[in-house]
Amino acid sequence: MELTVYLAGEIHSDWRNELKKKAETLELPIQFVGPMENHDRSDLIGEEILGEQPNPIFRDDAASSFNNLRTEVLMQKSDLVIALFGEKYKQWNTAMDASAAVNLNKPLIVIRPRELHHPLKELSRKASVTVETIDQAIKGLSYILETE
Amino acid sequence: MELTVYLAGEIHSDWRNELKKKAETLELPIQFVGPMENHDRSDLIGEEILGEQPNPIFRDDAASSFNNLRTEVLMQKSDLVIALFGEKYKQWNTAMDASAAVNLNKPLIVIRPRELHHPLKELSRKASVTVETIDQAIKGLSYILETE
Amino acid sequence: MELTVYLAGEIHSDWRNELKKKAETLELPIQFVGPMENHDRSDLIGEEILGEQPNPIFRDDAASSFNNLRTEVLMQKSDLVIALFGEKYKQWNTAMDASAAVNLNKPLIVIRPRELHHPLKELSRKASVTVETIDQAIKGLSYILETE
Amino acid sequence: MELTVYLAGEIHSDWRNELKKKAETLELPIQFVGPMENHDRSDLIGEEILGEQPNPIFRDDAASSFNNLRTEVLMQKSDLVIALFGEKYKQWNTAMDASAAVNLNKPLIVIRPRELHHPLKELSRKASVTVETIDQAIKGLSYILETE
Amino acid sequence: MELTVYLAGEIHSDWRNELKKKAETLELPIQFVGPMENHDRSDLIGEEILGEQPNPIFRDDAASSFNNLRTEVLMQKSDLVIALFGEKYKQWNTAMDASAAVNLNKPLIVIRPRELHHPLKELSRKASVTVETIDQAIKGLSYILETE
Amino acid sequence: MELTVYLAGEIHSDWRNELKKKAETLELPIQFVGPMENHDRSDLIGEEILGEQPNPIFRDDAASSFNNLRTEVLMQKSDLVIALFGEKYKQWNTAMDASAAVNLNKPLIVIRPRELHHPLKELSRKASVTVETIDQAIKGLSYILETE
Amino acid sequence: MELTVYLAGEIHSDWRNELKKKAETLELPIQFVGPMENHDRSDLIGEEILGEQPNPIFRDDAASSFNNLRTEVLMQKSDLVIALFGEKYKQWNTAMDASAAVNLNKPLIVIRPRELHHPLKELSRKASVTVETIDQAIKGLSYILETE
Amino acid sequence: MELTVYLAGEIHSDWRNELKKKAETLELPIQFVGPMENHDRSDLIGEEILGEQPNPIFRDDAASSFNNLRTEVLMQKSDLVIALFGEKYKQWNTAMDASAAVNLNKPLIVIRPRELHHPLKELSRKASVTVETIDQAIKGLSYILETE
Repeated sequence: MELTVYLAGEIHSDWRNELKKKAETLELPIQFVGPMENHDRSDLIGEEILGEQPNPIFRDDAASSFNNLRTEVLMQKSDLVIALFGEKYKQWNTAMDASAAVNLNKPLIVIRPRELHHPLKELSRKASVTVETIDQAIKGLSYILETE
Repeated sequence: MELTVYLAGEIHSDWRNELKKKAETLELPIQFVGPMENHDRSDLIGEEILGEQPNPIFRDDAASSFNNLRTEVLMQKSDLVIALFGEKYKQWNTAMDASAAVNLNKPLIVIRPRELHHPLKELSRKASVTVETIDQAIKGLSYILETE
Repeated sequence: MELTVYLAGEIHSDWRNELKKKAETLELPIQFVGPMENHDRSDLIGEEILGEQPNPIFRDDAASSFNNLRTEVLMQKSDLVIALFGEKYKQWNTAMDASAAVNLNKPLIVIRPRELHHPLKELSRKASVTVETIDQAIKGLSYILETE
Repeated sequence: MELTVYLAGEIHSDWRNELKKKAETLELPIQFVGPMENHDRSDLIGEEILGEQPNPIFRDDAASSFNNLRTEVLMQKSDLVIALFGEKYKQWNTAMDASAAVNLNKPLIVIRPRELHHPLKELSRKASVTVETIDQAIKGLSYILETE
Repeated sequence: MELTVYLAGEIHSDWRNELKKKAETLELPIQFVGPMENHDRSDLIGEEILGEQPNPIFRDDAASSFNNLRTEVLMQKSDLVIALFGEKYKQWNTAMDASAAVNLNKPLIVIRPRELHHPLKELSRKASVTVETIDQAIKGLSYILETE
Repeated sequence: MELTVYLAGEIHSDWRNELKKKAETLELPIQFVGPMENHDRSDLIGEEILGEQPNPIFRDDAASSFNNLRTEVLMQKSDLVIALFGEKYKQWNTAMDASAAVNLNKPLIVIRPRELHHPLKELSRKASVTVETIDQAIKGLSYILETE
Repeated sequence: MELTVYLAGEIHSDWRNELKKKAETLELPIQFVGPMENHDRSDLIGEEILGEQPNPIFRDDAASSFNNLRTEVLMQKSDLVIALFGEKYKQWNTAMDASAAVNLNKPLIVIRPRELHHPLKELSRKASVTVETIDQAIKGLSYILETE
Repeated sequence: MELTVYLAGEIHSDWRNELKKKAETLELPIQFVGPMENHDRSDLIGEEILGEQPNPIFRDDAASSFNNLRTEVLMQKSDLVIALFGEKYKQWNTAMDASAAVNLNKPLIVIRPRELHHPLKELSRKASVTVETIDQAIKGLSYILETE
């Protein structure tokens, strides 16, 4: 049995690579997918494809269409979603993707530092599991697949 | 035809009352529901009902159970969700509720100041409508119900 | 038992009033809902609420958000959808609403002149019933509610 | 990860081959499916299988049954739908398929010339993305699958 | 609490009236709905509304569209379906409606004489309850509503 | 806004009346529904309606059909489910109904003594809220409906 | 692209083998599944697994459980359902399976002799396609998969 | 055709291995999945991943998150669920998983000793099949896959 896991969350730090490498070391049969991690490309994809937009708001609208398209296709092909919240940024996208996962019946693992517990308490209660580190998330993934 | 509208978003400012009064002035046949607006009560409801918890994290867990229960019951009885994002606070709850609305097939109106366009661009694209003021949201509600 | 019926289709002719009057004459216990029938208002509602847009395409985008919002709320409250296609206009909205009805499990009555049979043949096959006149549609509605 | 993409839209021009070739050139791991592109065969399939029908309307009914059967099977196996609207023809089928995609939770890319913006504005707002050329659609597909 | 119950099954005998009268005697708060019971009207409704059809097969097609329309609207408004099978007729409609009820999550009561047990065994297993008489069905309805 | 609440759980003690009285005292606008509370009638309803059965197992089968029928109809009409687990009995029915509630998207309140925490830990995590007393459950219900 | 097709209908004649052979000749990439075709085994499977039952009705109940189990598993894995009605037998199972297919969003091909048109008219209208012979059904399957 | 089967039920006895070996002997193309069978690991997984918890109740909460996560992922990938009830333990988890299977449209086989018939009668009626031994369950699985 192979799993597909969508990695939602900030694209500024290197957490996805860290997580993927740990999964590889454990030889977990998991394919990871997620949003475009090149931040500039993610912000500019709308104008790159559709051409120049009248102002920054419409540029954002154009980019977000393609980012949502990517997320929708890939999340629907996933068995599980991991959402990581960090100290910085608003990360409303992450909250939106995590909530979409719950409502699409995709089990959800939330990773967040202990300091963020309060503002994430309602989302945490909807998640299957909330952990504080990438290592803990990997252990959670591994637990699903252990046969002994 | 009467509509039920769930008002998601921060509970620190008085925006819900402002919106309700405007709807009343226009005699829109709308019943508004939403989260507990008394912030302390919302944070303490877990311990109030379940008794003292071992630490702040578990107190939050307890409170969030009751807050989620309330939201789930009321949102399922709603025809439409309005989510307001302000300048302050993390508001991950608001993003979570807005995304839940989209995935439950509840049409969604997002209210946010223009400055917040960038971090909300993906959510905006999923909303039925994004506006900047309460007045605009009221006009949107009114438009649904106009018969001539 | 009272029914709510959504009337999809062109807003240039007076067909909705004709249909409503006939239903009234027969005292059918039906509430009719539908899109904004004032064409100018329908096209300008985006700018009216959101303010001036950079160009006609974005004006259309803005207007269509509010039109979709209205349709989504009202169609979800309906028990049945009637979609009328006339000789003029592209009417892709009508086809879109009719198809949405089918996929939302809302029974669908298509009204179209015989001349339009060919381009509507696939949609007709998905409709519960296809008729050619408003009178026939009224008879179909009436048949649902007859008790003897 | 391989995607299956349903190509809805007119069958008179060669746009599907153009799109497929471009996808091949980019080595995108995508399988394309769609309606019967041989127009005569599509119109006559009903009589070919069921025998002569009493008149052109029933011939159309018969053909559309098989065309809908094909579309339903193939769209349900797809991860994404692309719908192309051209200048000619009524293309209600295309609008119907595009709307079905949205309601089946299949992400939708609409391709249409800028001139058609107005009559397609409501459908565009429901699509994940609206573009004007096949090249842009291919870039959108490619963006979903880029891993760095 | 009031229930709506759809009565599927043959329209040749008087079983619906018998059942309704018994429910009335017990003052059960139930509204009964069902197909057109006037057999001729049911068979001719297609031609009555759409005009003469080329042959009996197309006349049947036309009639069945309106019969299905009626059933779809009324069954979706029901809380429960009762399907009665008698000794005569093919009654594939009844089996179709009963199966639709199961798949729409509508609890189902099957009424059939003991002699028909064998050909209905798979359907019986899908029904919530199978009984042999109208009296037993009434007792089943009554049991749902008893507050003692 | 009025709520309908299904009360799942043992029918040997008087907990439903206690809960209803407390809701009445608080004037909560709630209608309570639930299983047949007369235990003998619940066990014998199958034979009462269908006649004598060949042995106790088939008597149980017959009774459970009618009990399930009742539960299905009433739970589908509910906005919320409360499931109470006591010290005695196997209460697999209660676990089954609680799980059905979760999967039907009905928010769930579990009431159980602290001693039963361990065997109910997985179910508790799926419930919206877990409490230990009827008073706590009433406070939870009340919290949903408070407007100030 | 490979399809899985469930073959519902009588198990007394050899129609499934005929259909499978024709599909093989055309090298259609289709896997066919269906009910147990050994009639005695189908009727006795309940007692074979569960042991002797008290009377023929309970023997039927036991058998139908296993037959439904098989149908449910296999139909959920199918992309399309074909239901054949012949001149003999009540075939309520076939009608039940065909209706289940429609309600599970599985496209449906009905095969029936012309003589059976009248009693099957409502089901035919719900089917994607109705044909009269196995050859026609094969042509319909083939049409789905033709790529030029 | 290969099936995936989720094995719900107690993790104290060796029933899963017995069942798997029998399936292997018969060369059934079935992949079996299920909960963590190492009981200590199942109870301690929360603290193992999340660190020490304030008390046994919170330790249970932590563990159940991971156990539910595993069940949700694996049950959604299954075609069928088998739930075994034994004489000991409360087994509310088993009842919960069995009920979740029914509500997720996963066909369900219940295995239980005859003595447990009464407390499981409502669940048995919702199962596709109820049997008393592992051998009988294997025969049921085999029956689904027999082609002759």
